[in-house]
Amino acid sequence: MARRVAVADLVGRARRGEQLAVARLISLVEDGGDTGQLREVAAALAPYTGRAHVVGLTGPPGVGKSTSTSVLVRALRAQGRRVGVLAVDPSSPFSGGALLGDRVRMGEHATDDGVFIRSMAARGHLGGLAWSTPQALRVLDAAGCDVVLIETVGVGQSEVEVVSLADTTVVLLAPGTGDGIQAAKAGILEVADVFVVNKADRDGADQAIRDLRHMLSLGEPPAGGWERPVVRTVAARREGVGDLVAALDAHRDWLDAVGERERRRLRRAEAEIEAITLDQVRARIGDLRGAHGLCDLAQRVLDGELDPYRAADELTAEVTPP
Amino acid sequence: MARRVAVADLVGRARRGEQLAVARLISLVEDGGDTGQLREVAAALAPYTGRAHVVGLTGPPGVGKSTSTSVLVRALRAQGRRVGVLAVDPSSPFSGGALLGDRVRMGEHATDDGVFIRSMAARGHLGGLAWSTPQALRVLDAAGCDVVLIETVGVGQSEVEVVSLADTTVVLLAPGTGDGIQAAKAGILEVADVFVVNKADRDGADQAIRDLRHMLSLGEPPAGGWERPVVRTVAARREGVGDLVAALDAHRDWLDAVGERERRRLRRAEAEIEAITLDQVRARIGDLRGAHGLCDLAQRVLDGELDPYRAADELTAEVTPP
Repeated sequence: MARRVAVADLVGRARRGEQLAVARLISLVEDGGDTGQLREVAAALAPYTGRAHVVGLTGPPGVGKSTSTSVLVRALRAQGRRVGVLAVDPSSPFSGGALLGDRVRMGEHATDDGVFIRSMAARGHLGGLAWSTPQALRVLDAAGCDVVLIETVGVGQSEVEVVSLADTTVVLLAPGTGDGIQAAKAGILEVADVFVVNKADRDGADQAIRDLRHMLSLGEPPAGGWERPVVRTVAARREGVGDLVAALDAHRDWLDAVGERERRRLRRAEAEIEAITLDQVRARIGDLRGAHGLCDLAQRVLDGELDPYRAADELTAEVTPP
Repeated sequence: MARRVAVADLVGRARRGEQLAVARLISLVEDGGDTGQLREVAAALAPYTGRAHVVGLTGPPGVGKSTSTSVLVRALRAQGRRVGVLAVDPSSPFSGGALLGDRVRMGEHATDDGVFIRSMAARGHLGGLAWSTPQALRVLDAAGCDVVLIETVGVGQSEVEVVSLADTTVVLLAPGTGDGIQAAKAGILEVADVFVVNKADRDGADQAIRDLRHMLSLGEPPAGGWERPVVRTVAARREGVGDLVAALDAHRDWLDAVGERERRRLRRAEAEIEAITLDQVRARIGDLRGAHGLCDLAQRVLDGELDPYRAADELTAEVTPP
């Protein structure tokens, strides 16, 4: 993976919508730690991002996230919009665009030039999704995607991280599984902008929707006047998908109208910069550990020459570029 | 708490074994974040530490950690050794030397000038115990304690953190509770230097010891030739406590003989310096967030002027003292 790639050329081709260039750039940001081209890609993309509407889809396993994503892609394509999909599985050690599962699942879009699909794993990176996923988002954004869907595979903390990357967060639930209560426990209700009750043809769908509305009525009133809609879908039969697209567009328009999209993106950029900064410091400490700098400081603390706070001062000075 | 205290004077009095000075210094390191005297105390203590044998006691709730600590103190005092006790409860919001529970529990030592007892809570500090507990240890060390016992109250992650502070880690188990298996799951078996099966007069004690020995035989062979002993005690009747003291001393002698105590203390000092460094960087980022420095960088990323990596470079430069 050490071969250097002409990043500027790739970005130019990605902006013209070339699938191969998009895939290659995402690979570069995923492998960024090794090749050192992550920074180069980030710098080259910077002027061309900020257009796409980033939609996060999350919810408990089995509610139909994959199916919903697929039918959403189809509906958006039918309107002529360019769509990106990032399927993120922070619990998986596997990654890359070549995952067979993707190709099969998204098979109907495989030959569509207006759809970009990518599976990503946050394998062992500190901060989980924090590193490569925002850059992959920027690649799809720069490639002219009108909408980028981020779908979480797997459960847990990852869901909340994905939410932090999205302009609009969709929480999917399904009847009869007590999902609503679990979602409430996981703190997901608070972060949802749009609710979907999928599998709405099942017994208990009405009850699930009533329960959800009841839970929502108990919480804080919606901030800034956005009344969070509850959309009924049967994704497997493509029912209700038009309503979902309409709800996403309505939320995007509301975000723009009240300035909330800008605020969310600012907070997101702040968090990203802070995370990268701390990671840089941590990496430099790791280098020093290898070079015995930290070890020397620790020895001086043991010898009573230094206290750990003054040692930390020296380390802080050392880990920072002159 | 804003009143400045003459730290050098306190350290001098603590070194002469004055209870009040020791208590006051521990309060200063606990409140360090507010008064700013944590650094001053750490600097004043640095030349006088590294003597005490630090023993961590951990294990599931109900195995008799408090009782074992108390009888250990008595046994060590009977040999004329000066003893410090830190009872750390990372899950508790309460802290300080004035906890009634302590005084009652350790009542028999309340008038003994050679025993220093302190409850600490790691209330909300980043990194849990990482901040104040190592400094409190240094206070007791400088006060001439031959042995400092760190006892965890509460469960979970805290136990592993306490272990990281100790020269010798004692894991207590009791028969009939499946504790051994839970301890194995929690990763505690790996970090133990000495095992205690307390309440060894109960049914199932022999079985618990056999189970433990079996689990130990399945694991890695002991590093550096230390065969981890399994000590039987009935702490409530003070049975087996002499064996435990002997096991602790044997482990300390082994640590010194093979140079392992020095290695453990080096690793501990490295981890402490690294944690303080990262915390300093994080705090400075927090200051910048307040002063809109981070916000400005984030805005420039949104505007496409900067990528987040170059923004992080600027932040790293800003958060570091010139």
